[in-house]
Amino acid sequence: MLCHLEMESFIAYPPNCDFPLENLPYGVFSTVNNPQHRIGVAVGDLVLDLSAISQLFNGPLLKNKQHVFNEPTLNAFMSLGRPFWLEARATLQRILAADCPILRDDANLRAISLIPQSEVKMHLPAEIGDYTDFYSSIYHATNVGIMFRGKENALMPNWKHLPVGYHGRASSVVVSGTDIRRPNGQTRPSDDAPPVFGPCRLMDFELEMAFFVGGPGNPLGKPVPVGEAHEHIFGMVLMNDWSARDIQKWEYVPLGPFLAKNLGTSISPWVVTMEALEPFKVANFPQDPEPLPYLMHHDNYNFDINLEVDIKPEGTPVASTVCRSNFKYLYWTPKQQLAHHTITGCNMRPGDLLASGTISGETSDSYGSMLELCWKGTKNVPLVGGMSRKFLQDGDEVIVKGFCQHENYRVGFGICSGKVLPAIPL
Amino acid sequence: MLCHLEMESFIAYPPNCDFPLENLPYGVFSTVNNPQHRIGVAVGDLVLDLSAISQLFNGPLLKNKQHVFNEPTLNAFMSLGRPFWLEARATLQRILAADCPILRDDANLRAISLIPQSEVKMHLPAEIGDYTDFYSSIYHATNVGIMFRGKENALMPNWKHLPVGYHGRASSVVVSGTDIRRPNGQTRPSDDAPPVFGPCRLMDFELEMAFFVGGPGNPLGKPVPVGEAHEHIFGMVLMNDWSARDIQKWEYVPLGPFLAKNLGTSISPWVVTMEALEPFKVANFPQDPEPLPYLMHHDNYNFDINLEVDIKPEGTPVASTVCRSNFKYLYWTPKQQLAHHTITGCNMRPGDLLASGTISGETSDSYGSMLELCWKGTKNVPLVGGMSRKFLQDGDEVIVKGFCQHENYRVGFGICSGKVLPAIPL
Ligand SMILES: [Ca+2]
Ligand SMILES: [Ca+2]
Ligand SMILES: [Mg+2]
Ligand SMILES: [Mg+2]
Ligand code: NI
Repeated sequence: MLCHLEMESFIAYPPNCDFPLENLPYGVFSTVNNPQHRIGVAVGDLVLDLSAISQLFNGPLLKNKQHVFNEPTLNAFMSLGRPFWLEARATLQRILAADCPILRDDANLRAISLIPQSEVKMHLPAEIGDYTDFYSSIYHATNVGIMFRGKENALMPNWKHLPVGYHGRASSVVVSGTDIRRPNGQTRPSDDAPPVFGPCRLMDFELEMAFFVGGPGNPLGKPVPVGEAHEHIFGMVLMNDWSARDIQKWEYVPLGPFLAKNLGTSISPWVVTMEALEPFKVANFPQDPEPLPYLMHHDNYNFDINLEVDIKPEGTPVASTVCRSNFKYLYWTPKQQLAHHTITGCNMRPGDLLASGTISGETSDSYGSMLELCWKGTKNVPLVGGMSRKFLQDGDEVIVKGFCQHENYRVGFGICSGKVLPAIPL
Repeated sequence: MLCHLEMESFIAYPPNCDFPLENLPYGVFSTVNNPQHRIGVAVGDLVLDLSAISQLFNGPLLKNKQHVFNEPTLNAFMSLGRPFWLEARATLQRILAADCPILRDDANLRAISLIPQSEVKMHLPAEIGDYTDFYSSIYHATNVGIMFRGKENALMPNWKHLPVGYHGRASSVVVSGTDIRRPNGQTRPSDDAPPVFGPCRLMDFELEMAFFVGGPGNPLGKPVPVGEAHEHIFGMVLMNDWSARDIQKWEYVPLGPFLAKNLGTSISPWVVTMEALEPFKVANFPQDPEPLPYLMHHDNYNFDINLEVDIKPEGTPVASTVCRSNFKYLYWTPKQQLAHHTITGCNMRPGDLLASGTISGETSDSYGSMLELCWKGTKNVPLVGGMSRKFLQDGDEVIVKGFCQHENYRVGFGICSGKVLPAIPL
């Protein structure tokens, strides 16, 4: 859509680097020497500490808002809105450009503001006021429908009329690298016997992406029109919505998933802005029937983001890729999700997180959960070294990756990983 | 359970006052002259401004924590835990006692710390990190089940085995007195026709109560055992979980209620502590089958709290009571709700809000929603002056009241009110 100009930074990185000058994702980090949480931008294999260079944001909009770069979360920056985000991006691309001496030639400033990514600890990028999980892949919804209700009733009657979603648990969203405990809980393995208590037997991942809400937020009672939704979308992350399938099955009727999901939801630490994703816009998924006007937009708001899930069993040297999918397989767009979420008046706050739902493609190698990959336990999912899985085992590390591929650069999301720890004995 | 000692304050109030010395609920308020949000305690028809007397909390635990009384929310105080809450209560009961001169005889201190309730504006008592809504009245669940699935399948198979619940929307919880906008949204009035868009036609209230979580919070992955749950329960409020029934019906399968609920949830501003409720403990609801051990406790944790819902149509002089119910009708206790909520490892934070679900009793005058009172639109609910309702109309004010009645005092919750505003034209 936008014409792409070649960019070069004085910071060197290879062409397949996730974090070129065209990306510039925001995150929150700390270092051993300075445990203070602060805002950084990933560039090459470095982090640029914005709290150390906040005085360089001297454009007309940000010169009086430099304090947002000294906050321990991105919420204040997210709240400013798109004109401010654009100015920040332009400032960053300028000061990191090969021909700009401001940072390049200031050894002191570079020493305090550029830190190897290998030396930082990443944290949640924002305080998440509320977290919502949608269910927007038609392939995923159809697969699950076939498994649990049969082919005839696979998609619920409402599914193509609105982006189905539910409120998730904000407190249990954690940053990539956090270990996830296999939960104990109540399940009913046999329909003819009482429920039992014990460790989850069907531990799963869900390959998802999520966007952070930005802008000042809408007041309760006032929806965000679909035509204004873009102004309220800051950027995106990878997500693994860990799921305890046996617990989910027993608990979820009639009020939806609850404890099967609030055991932990992992996100990648770097928030890739919608500006960085702009060159990777693709056609929206065809929608039939046409949605109601409050959900209708005619511009493309779908993105070609390659996604992959790897499993690395404990003590093994290599990870196995079990799924290759793509964000573009989603039926509902982020704009539609946001417009729908607010249509009854729900107030959004900067830092709120809206997730896509499991991103499955059409083919069986693109399914975004073990539930689908092993087809409800009827198939083995092969791993390298002769191993296989149906659901996740203790010690399994699940690694989600994502990137957009341009002719001569990529806009990457880094990784979203987490390891399954054994259940605590109860 | 605890022997009740007569208490007398130098502040005069009648025997039917909601806020005697035995109550002392906490809230957050501001005044016209001082818009700063600050913590207060209701006593008689006054508010005691704790930020003005924080130096009086000089017991062994609180003397180094007086700063919590200078916060704009109760979260910091809630996080301290029960020993601190008990010391605060003892301090307050001492300095407000008839024979204590500290405040009584200090005209200056009284002038700055005691404010008529009629002159304060109340705010949300805490920053609510996450809000959960249970479904714990067997009468409500059975009524709804009969209406939508028939008498044979009224209760879902899981209902008596676990406290069914779902994550709600924290951002849309508002304090009593906030007007609630009738939502626009998507519904499908006829099963044979496509869905339509427009103002909700079946606007409803839900009579609920909710408790605030206190204590330092459990880390992700570590459940709160039912035997320790009391230490994580700070106090209770009244709630009206506004519900758009036609929107709910179309959206809620399979992931649960979403937009039908996030249009607004009202709570009363005064948090009544579990200590104030202690004298009103009654036997738990009989549970058959016996719950699994992680949900089992043998002490009473049910409370005799009289509840009432009034409707006051716009421009009418009197409100009509449409429902009289009682907290004690709930099947699952707050301890069981908290133990269940955390069993898969969900982390609780001080200030989290857990609601009971609609509190319906056995008789038709004790049903806690219009859906049940009008039995899905088949009956008129009479109001004074010859009016009647099936669901709520624009301009209707819904007023929830609650109190515990002792022989010679009451522990009241005040009110939780809200008025239905007409939908905005979209
Ligand atoms: Ca999910
Ligand atoms: Ca409810
Ligand atoms: Mg989750
Ligand atoms: Mg609500
Ligand atoms: Ni929240």
